[in-house]
Amino acid sequence: MNYTIGDFEANKMKIIGCVNQAKAQGVDLLVFSEQAVSGAPAYDLLNKVSFLDLCEDSLVEIASYCDNISVLVGMPAQSTNNKTISVAALIEDRKIKRYVGKKTIDSRDELFHLSPSKGCEYIKIRGTKVAVVVGSDIKTEQEYGDYADIIVNLCNSHYMRGCIENRYDFYRRLAFMTGKTVVYVNNVGGQTDVIYDGSSAVFNSRGEALALLKSFEEDFHVIDLNADVPPCKIPEQNKTINVYRAIKLGLGDFFRKNGFLSACIGLSGGIDSAVVAALAAEVLGPENVHVLLMPSQFSSDHSVDDARILAENLGARYQIVPITQTFATLTQTLGPIFGELPFDVTEENMQARLRGMMLMALSNKFGHILLNTSNKSESAVGYGTLYGDSVGAISIIGDLYKSEVYDLARYINRNGEIIPSNTILKAPSAELRPNQKDSDTLLPYDILDAILYRMLEEGQSREEIINAGFDEEDVYHVYGMVIRNEHKRYQFCPVLRLSSCVLGKNRIMPLTSRYGC
Amino acid sequence: MNYTIGDFEANKMKIIGCVNQAKAQGVDLLVFSEQAVSGAPAYDLLNKVSFLDLCEDSLVEIASYCDNISVLVGMPAQSTNNKTISVAALIEDRKIKRYVGKKTIDSRDELFHLSPSKGCEYIKIRGTKVAVVVGSDIKTEQEYGDYADIIVNLCNSHYMRGCIENRYDFYRRLAFMTGKTVVYVNNVGGQTDVIYDGSSAVFNSRGEALALLKSFEEDFHVIDLNADVPPCKIPEQNKTINVYRAIKLGLGDFFRKNGFLSACIGLSGGIDSAVVAALAAEVLGPENVHVLLMPSQFSSDHSVDDARILAENLGARYQIVPITQTFATLTQTLGPIFGELPFDVTEENMQARLRGMMLMALSNKFGHILLNTSNKSESAVGYGTLYGDSVGAISIIGDLYKSEVYDLARYINRNGEIIPSNTILKAPSAELRPNQKDSDTLLPYDILDAILYRMLEEGQSREEIINAGFDEEDVYHVYGMVIRNEHKRYQFCPVLRLSSCVLGKNRIMPLTSRYGC
Repeated sequence: MNYTIGDFEANKMKIIGCVNQAKAQGVDLLVFSEQAVSGAPAYDLLNKVSFLDLCEDSLVEIASYCDNISVLVGMPAQSTNNKTISVAALIEDRKIKRYVGKKTIDSRDELFHLSPSKGCEYIKIRGTKVAVVVGSDIKTEQEYGDYADIIVNLCNSHYMRGCIENRYDFYRRLAFMTGKTVVYVNNVGGQTDVIYDGSSAVFNSRGEALALLKSFEEDFHVIDLNADVPPCKIPEQNKTINVYRAIKLGLGDFFRKNGFLSACIGLSGGIDSAVVAALAAEVLGPENVHVLLMPSQFSSDHSVDDARILAENLGARYQIVPITQTFATLTQTLGPIFGELPFDVTEENMQARLRGMMLMALSNKFGHILLNTSNKSESAVGYGTLYGDSVGAISIIGDLYKSEVYDLARYINRNGEIIPSNTILKAPSAELRPNQKDSDTLLPYDILDAILYRMLEEGQSREEIINAGFDEEDVYHVYGMVIRNEHKRYQFCPVLRLSSCVLGKNRIMPLTSRYGC
Repeated sequence: MNYTIGDFEANKMKIIGCVNQAKAQGVDLLVFSEQAVSGAPAYDLLNKVSFLDLCEDSLVEIASYCDNISVLVGMPAQSTNNKTISVAALIEDRKIKRYVGKKTIDSRDELFHLSPSKGCEYIKIRGTKVAVVVGSDIKTEQEYGDYADIIVNLCNSHYMRGCIENRYDFYRRLAFMTGKTVVYVNNVGGQTDVIYDGSSAVFNSRGEALALLKSFEEDFHVIDLNADVPPCKIPEQNKTINVYRAIKLGLGDFFRKNGFLSACIGLSGGIDSAVVAALAAEVLGPENVHVLLMPSQFSSDHSVDDARILAENLGARYQIVPITQTFATLTQTLGPIFGELPFDVTEENMQARLRGMMLMALSNKFGHILLNTSNKSESAVGYGTLYGDSVGAISIIGDLYKSEVYDLARYINRNGEIIPSNTILKAPSAELRPNQKDSDTLLPYDILDAILYRMLEEGQSREEIINAGFDEEDVYHVYGMVIRNEHKRYQFCPVLRLSSCVLGKNRIMPLTSRYGC
């Protein structure tokens, strides 16, 4: 199920709805995900007594519906020594029977906020021995012996590229190695930057999948473990499609859960803003997407054309507001200070910031939520203007390398051209000075992305990357840019997390340091 | 000593310098602070093998200087199971004899990056039994029995208001309760937003201070524990003076350690920017401070006058660059989109963002580092423009309530008027629309600050604050503003930490939540 943090009423109603549905189908044991009652990640709310009290109140009401059924539901709770722990609450005969706590706190989102508890415990449901495991305890707890016939794991697993296949693989092996049935129940839904992907599953003791629940959607599934359920085939996972679905879920829930209705986006004619606009139009409806084209004297004709064609293809409202005049007035105002100093990166940044300002004005005036359009390659090397390219309420492609943005663009065009092919084919340019190309400052994106991937996701050192065949100068160039631009990422808007190395979340570096310089 | 993160060469030379000085004075045991070799907080650098290798290399070289002396020096190290731990390395006879690890990892800056180790160990220095305790282990380890005559604690304690007197009190009691001599050695210096305050100390078994080392400065002190050292009086701590010294240290080190030379600041005529400019002029020299006055049609004459007088008092370079024309051009450009819609918060934000943009242009063109001028009262309730008031490389008063900014202003004027008295006496106003006063939107600052202090630093609930005598409507109003503005603080620049509740660092809230709404 898809929960909202702190929306106790809605979460409770959703849980009770499932309880009633399960009772109607004669279910013995109904399992929810970790922290279902509260929604997650709740950060410091987890340490507020009033927040935990509301969890308890919800649980008591949920319990009152649980006759003739056993229920395991995740929630944060106060331990006997007044710490907050994550538990699976067991409800039977309308009574809260016990809490099974989580021992392993290994997520950066929880490390501050949750304390370790006892870990795996065993319960008996109609004669069947069930091991109840919360979250990552499943990774360390491997010796179930004769204590369990079934292992049930309540989770809160974030989406990241490749995680679904890896997770299926892990649970399949666990089932096979322990010789037990394994039930994995995960949360689904977006919570600002975090996306839970669902993909709950049941595997039998031969490591075969008996049930694979939906990814990126709510799902409810009843399985009879005494019946001879035929195993199902694990479908091939397509990374681009999964990323596409993850972003749609994250974006949609960000708007829905915050009560936002409409978005605004700046269209440059380039690939990044095109992909963001196409995704927004699909998720929010084109009538709720307002785009601005903000050309300057450095914008090429084709950029404006490409942006306009995209807006028309999407059916989104668009307006052309050149920044030329404001830029000229601003330059004139600053004239007495700048004197005869030549045009440099200052004026490039001014253009990006003027665009950010116009978009924020549109956002303020009409209540549209500004979507950021930066990608991970740019933000990693700092190829973007702070308070210009960094602005927005949320970045939906900020954890995708440029090459992945192209993959997404091609997927969006799978049934016909939505993003103009010229946008996909032309060389990327910031168009902040005459005849500028990204590759003038950066490396070609295929090389840049490959070096960044090794550096960020695989944690390779400069030497390792050079030994893998990359040019030494290129590698040092990229490393230097990443290190020098930590301060820009510090003030970046929230970024939908799609990888194992989200900058600023999975990778936190000091802003003042001599290391690596 | 004042270390720089990752500047192994400089840190090592500083440590070796102390070793030589101590040897010349016939010292038996020389103690440095926690993570002296690496500098702190190093965040994810702590998990890089190459970073830890450089620590080891430094330590080996330091050891080569340690003949006829025992040395305890803090550094991060790799544990036998490949985790990073914080240790006190014991050097004797030029050899690294052992590592004493830290058990308690309780700082949010370290929780991700350090693993718990074994904790307190005992060593013998010329027949004297010494308990070696790293960091917060001192708070839990209280049973030393006969194992120790002296307790030595290597630390990395952040500054926060009131911490020095609390810490003296803690160590005094510890010495008295255990009946042992207690030696506390703390780091000093600014590391971006973190300030270590030094204030190392030695207490005898009667709980008397035998040595109080400098606060906010490096210090080196030799004490003969066999001699009859007369106890010294613990001086009264003045919060405003300590905050003033903390900011000067933090600001100065931010510039020095990053190699920055000059700063720029926007002066409004108000108290916040005045205090920031005065501090910057004092720390960096007035010749390195470039201020802009950016009046609009809503600025009062006295604002420009007050700002000009301040700049002249400081001897800082100032220029007056009205935003009126750029604001007019921008408004005109947006005209076709905004139509006849009335002037609202959009236009107020546009003014703040134009100012932010001009300051960033100045920063980009001349390499000045932009100092943010927001205070904690504003940022807590979101009374400020994102990408306008939030901009800057660092905020030096962003963890001070408005009332504390006034205290600082009066202290800055202690020997004569630097900040114009009109700036201190007039009612605060953002001057973004005619006759605006902060108290129109907010409460009077004395009430606002009192409610915020109870909410943020003391963690009181709405009910507790109301029961303490505050108006129910006011309390709900303030709570609502704090909760609704989490997203602005997410993208705020780094803030010098001066309290126990720095927003976004000591208090992390979900951006999407229904709790408290």
